[in-house]
This record gives sequence, structure tokens and C-alpha cells, in this order.
Amino acid sequence: MDRYQDLRQIAQQLDADAVALVPGPNFARVYNKNFGSNERPLVVIIPVEGPPAAIVPNLELQSWALVDFEGEVFDWKDQLGYQGAFEALARHMSLGRIAVEGQLMRVFVDQALRSAWPGLQIIDAEVAISGLRRRKTPAEITALESAIATSEAALAEVLADVKLGMTEMEIQSALLGALFRHGAEGLSFNPIVASGSNAARPHASARADYAIQPGDTLLIDFGARRGGFNADITRTYFVGHAPDEAHRAYETVLHANLKGQELTRPGATAHDIDDAVTGVLEASPFAEYILTKTGHGLGRATHEAPYIMRGNLEVLEPGMVFTIEPGLYRDGAYGIRIEEDVLVTQTGSRALTTLDSSLQIIG
Amino acid sequence: MDRYQDLRQIAQQLDADAVALVPGPNFARVYNKNFGSNERPLVVIIPVEGPPAAIVPNLELQSWALVDFEGEVFDWKDQLGYQGAFEALARHMSLGRIAVEGQLMRVFVDQALRSAWPGLQIIDAEVAISGLRRRKTPAEITALESAIATSEAALAEVLADVKLGMTEMEIQSALLGALFRHGAEGLSFNPIVASGSNAARPHASARADYAIQPGDTLLIDFGARRGGFNADITRTYFVGHAPDEAHRAYETVLHANLKGQELTRPGATAHDIDDAVTGVLEASPFAEYILTKTGHGLGRATHEAPYIMRGNLEVLEPGMVFTIEPGLYRDGAYGIRIEEDVLVTQTGSRALTTLDSSLQIIG
Repeated sequence: MDRYQDLRQIAQQLDADAVALVPGPNFARVYNKNFGSNERPLVVIIPVEGPPAAIVPNLELQSWALVDFEGEVFDWKDQLGYQGAFEALARHMSLGRIAVEGQLMRVFVDQALRSAWPGLQIIDAEVAISGLRRRKTPAEITALESAIATSEAALAEVLADVKLGMTEMEIQSALLGALFRHGAEGLSFNPIVASGSNAARPHASARADYAIQPGDTLLIDFGARRGGFNADITRTYFVGHAPDEAHRAYETVLHANLKGQELTRPGATAHDIDDAVTGVLEASPFAEYILTKTGHGLGRATHEAPYIMRGNLEVLEPGMVFTIEPGLYRDGAYGIRIEEDVLVTQTGSRALTTLDSSLQIIG
Repeated sequence: MDRYQDLRQIAQQLDADAVALVPGPNFARVYNKNFGSNERPLVVIIPVEGPPAAIVPNLELQSWALVDFEGEVFDWKDQLGYQGAFEALARHMSLGRIAVEGQLMRVFVDQALRSAWPGLQIIDAEVAISGLRRRKTPAEITALESAIATSEAALAEVLADVKLGMTEMEIQSALLGALFRHGAEGLSFNPIVASGSNAARPHASARADYAIQPGDTLLIDFGARRGGFNADITRTYFVGHAPDEAHRAYETVLHANLKGQELTRPGATAHDIDDAVTGVLEASPFAEYILTKTGHGLGRATHEAPYIMRGNLEVLEPGMVFTIEPGLYRDGAYGIRIEEDVLVTQTGSRALTTLDSSLQIIG
């Protein structure tokens, strides 16, 4: 059993001599272990045929022993720098064209490769390489469910304590503490806790100087990481009461979300789902408050394929997991988003998220 | 006052037409605001003369309004993709040679630039651009002190509860919960909580199935982020008792650390500090257990200039902050590291970290 078979095929299809992997989700899928992405390059090169080779910082060699690597390792010490290791590898393996993870590999590694193999063609094969993570195995789905359960337990706990007059930052700190108490091993991303007009910014930062006010929406977008997998959940609550317009906008977003879940099944395309979900929003009086596509795949990375957007004709398959997260954002006034993590099953879909999404008044 | 003056100078010195910034610490220094690094390119291009221009994902435009940007913005929607925005910018601004942050910019952005400006030369100016963050302002030092105070309060709280039989993972979860209760706004990095032989790996992962044992070292390397600045602290404790050899290794590491602090002053070089610190370790019976250089700069990034290592002849200046973190790692047996965050003052140095570093027995 060659654990590189699918990567070698990608290289072949792209007429490349090899695939390069850097630390990140694709690396973790192959080696069930990951490394940090820092100023020290670590690269694995997997040729179309024969054993792989790796460039590894000397101080990571102890951890590298856990990788159970089959090939030659070219390590380098901080004091000497990394270029020598790239050149030693170049003497060991000849390369004219290499497929890389364009969203992960950074320019300094790209330039070290170009310098070691003059004339090297570097192809962005992000879509194909990360595509190997699209269909989740049962064990991977279990890991996702565990990350989601931790996240939901934390939010439920925090919500019980949210009161008028708390700042966004206070709510965020409470949420983060609860996440780790409930077993988070890391964060899928820095949470978004935003209320009132701040909620109208899809990637807002919590404010230390803004206390939640009656009539605000309070948007919380967050997730725990467990077993290398990431939850990503958004709920929007109303503080004190729900003003008329925002109330109707909430019901519209919820309807759009449910429509997306209803249409998710093997054979539908990513386009179909976004088209239907965004279609609900467009048909409402709130069409001008649409800002985002419907969702993104979820797994070892918080944003991965399949991207649920119009124009993406990728066909859904059982085992795919993605977010459905329609929202409406009225500048200066409110923001509403409801985000579920949805699994494509053999016959349809199942939401892995279980928290109530009906309109709730808090504080 | 031109906030781009120093960046324009870097471009000029490198004979480049412009500097490109992507989200990250250099971007945050200029705009006092940051964006996520995800599948959507966001790039600011600052020419040697004249207004900058930016490529911004459409869904970030609300947040972008907070940047108070002086130049043209080329936004793009998910449904249409980003290449059109790069090409529109290329019609607006001509470029032959551009200086980029090599440790931050990823290959897909590099390729979008090359494709929009055919023949473009891309130069890795990471060192120069990030070098602008070397000397911290008083406000930045206050932010670092705040991040450190939060971190230390969290560790002190957790330490009081550590007991024989707790797993590395349990200790890590307790630490993470405490960090956010004490005001962390994020993590400088995923903490390292490693005991026994696992502590011999400088970047170990906490194990859910290993309970700390009498005679183990327990190494905890962690830090909170506050106000955009990162703490980075390591302490190593002994569980139950300190075996003879590891006890002497601990004293050696502590001695090396204090030596580094003693020599840190304006005019000394990064080389001098590593040479003295590593020199203490090399002169001990434990020389073969050295794995790492002495330290790294600390600020908006957890790893930044100045890198404290032999061969780096960079001269220390008041306002620089870096870690001094010598360690000894005996494979299969123990790992010891003591890490202080040290400020270069007008006349010498001051440790911003305040936790006791003398040998302590816990559990």
C-alpha cells in the first residue's frame, strides 16, 4: 500500500515530476501529524516514482521520527541556514516541474526551490491536492462531531450567562474559556463576537468598549478544533427584543439555510446549493444586504473544498462536509448569519450541528 | 506625515517599484488592524511614490472602511474570482519589480502578481520589511507586558492545581481555559505541555494518554496575545523530585539564561548573546543535548527579528524585545527549557517575564 498513490497521480496528471507538501492539512492527512508553519522551511517532495525526500529543520528531527518517513532527509541547522539542504536535495533528485499547495507554500520556500533547481516550473495544484481531503472517512466525521459537540456545549454555557451591559470582548473571553474547559485542543479560528452595527461586518473583531444593547443582534461565529478537525458554527441572537425588520431578516436567513440543507444530496452541485440559498435571500426585501457566498468545506482546514458558490459545478458526494451560512448584513444596523455544518449522506444531508437555530431573545 | 515612508525607502533601496503587504504583523503595524489569511487574497501595493492601491475581497469592504485607506481599491467577488482585480490594478499601476514579505505571501498570490504583470521580478524583502518592527515603542512594550502578565497569571493558577496522574492534555486544557479567563485575546501559538521523554522534543504535542510521573520534567511553553502582541514563556518544573542529572542540567540552563540576560545591552550583537548562552551549555557535561539557538524577537509576531543566533551580527538597540530560551534535550529522557522575554534598555536589559525561574518541584 503506497500512501502517496493519489499524490503521485496528481503529479502525473499535471505532467509534473513531483508534488511538494509543506506543513498543514494535506501533510497531516498523509502523516497523521503536523508541524508548525514558521520561519524554518520543512518540505516533503514526493516524486512520481520512487521514495520521497524531505527538508527538515534540525531541531525538528526528534518530532520527525514520529512521521515514519520512507525517504532521505536533508536537515539543516539554524546557524547554517536552509539553502544548503535544498541544494543537497537537488543533487539527490532532479526536478523540472513541481506541483505545490499554492495556498500554503510561501514565497521564501518557492524561491528556495527555484534557486536549487534553476528553471524549475512551479504549478499551483492546491485544488487537486486539497481535493483529496474532500470526502471524509467515518473516523474523520466522528472527529468533526466531537469538535462540534465541544463547541456547542461551550456556547450553551456562555449564553446562559450573557447579560445586557456585557461587552463583546467579555462575551468572547467567556466563550474562549468555556471552549477549552469543554475539551477544545485549539481554535478553528479566532471567534467573532459582534453585536449591533459591528455584526454587519462578516469578519468583525470583538470590541472591549461596546456593551450589547437592547434590540442588537449578537452574532457569534466560532469553533473548537479536536483531533485535527475544525468546527465552524454561527448563531445570531437578539438582545432583549427583536426589532421588526431584523426579525424578518432573521426568518429569511433561517429559511435560506433550511432550503440549502434540503437540497444538499449526492449529485447536486455546489452551484445548485448557493443558487438556491442565495436565491431565497435575493427574492426577499433584503437582497441588497447579501455579502457572502453560502459556505465552504470543513475538515482539517476551516476553509477547504468544496466552496459552496455559484459557478462551482463540483458535484456533491457522500462524505463531503461543508458549511451552509447565509447571512444578511445591513451596514450600520445589524448582521445576521446562521451557520450549520452539513454532511452529505448517501441519500441527502445531515446537519452535524445540533443547536437550536430558531429566533431566540437573550439577556 | 507619510505612514509609508519607511516602506517606500525599502523599495527604493532594493531598486523595486513598490512594496506589497499581505495581512499579518507588518500590515497591522501600518494600519493598526489586521485581516485573516485565507483563500481570499488581500494585498496592498505601496509604490515608491504616490498613493497605494489595494486588492480587497468584496466581503471585507465593510471592515476595510476601518483602514482609512488613501488609495484606489480593487475589490472582487467570490463568484468572479480575484484575477480580474489583479489585472485591473495592473492597468492602474505599472510594476517591473516588487518587494514582498517572503515568509507571509503565499504562492497563489505570487502567481496572481506574475500573471497580472508579466515578467514581474518578485524579491523577498521579508528581513527589511519585518525589520521595521524591531524596535518597540513604549505603547508596544506596554502591550507586551500586558500579554505577559495575563500569561503568567494563568500559569500560576494552573500550577497550583497540577497533580501526579494528570495527563499532558489535561494540563494543557486547564492552561488554555485559564489564559482566556485572565484576558488572553488569542494565543501566541498552540501551547506545548510535554513531560518526560516528550519534553525532549522542542515542539512536542500534548498527549492525552500520558500522565505525568515522579521524576519527569514538565515543560510548558505558551503565551497569550493581547492588543496584537504576543507573550512567549517557557518554564520547566520537576514532578515529585528532581533526578540528579536533570537537576544539574536545569542549573546549567538557568545559568546560561542568566548569562544571556547579563550580556544583553545596546551595542552587543545577536551573535554575542547566542555565543555566550550556547557557550555555557557547550562547556557543560550536557553539550550533546543542545538543539536550538538562543531565541527570537517577539512582538506582533511570535517569531520575528532579531533572531538570536551565532552568525547574526545584527547590533542590539534599545526597544528590541526577544526571547532568551536555552534548553537541553536528552532524547528519550528529559527536556529542559527556560524562556524569558527580554527588553533591551538604554543601558542593558530588563526581563519582561517575572515568574520565578529557580528549580521547582510540583505535584
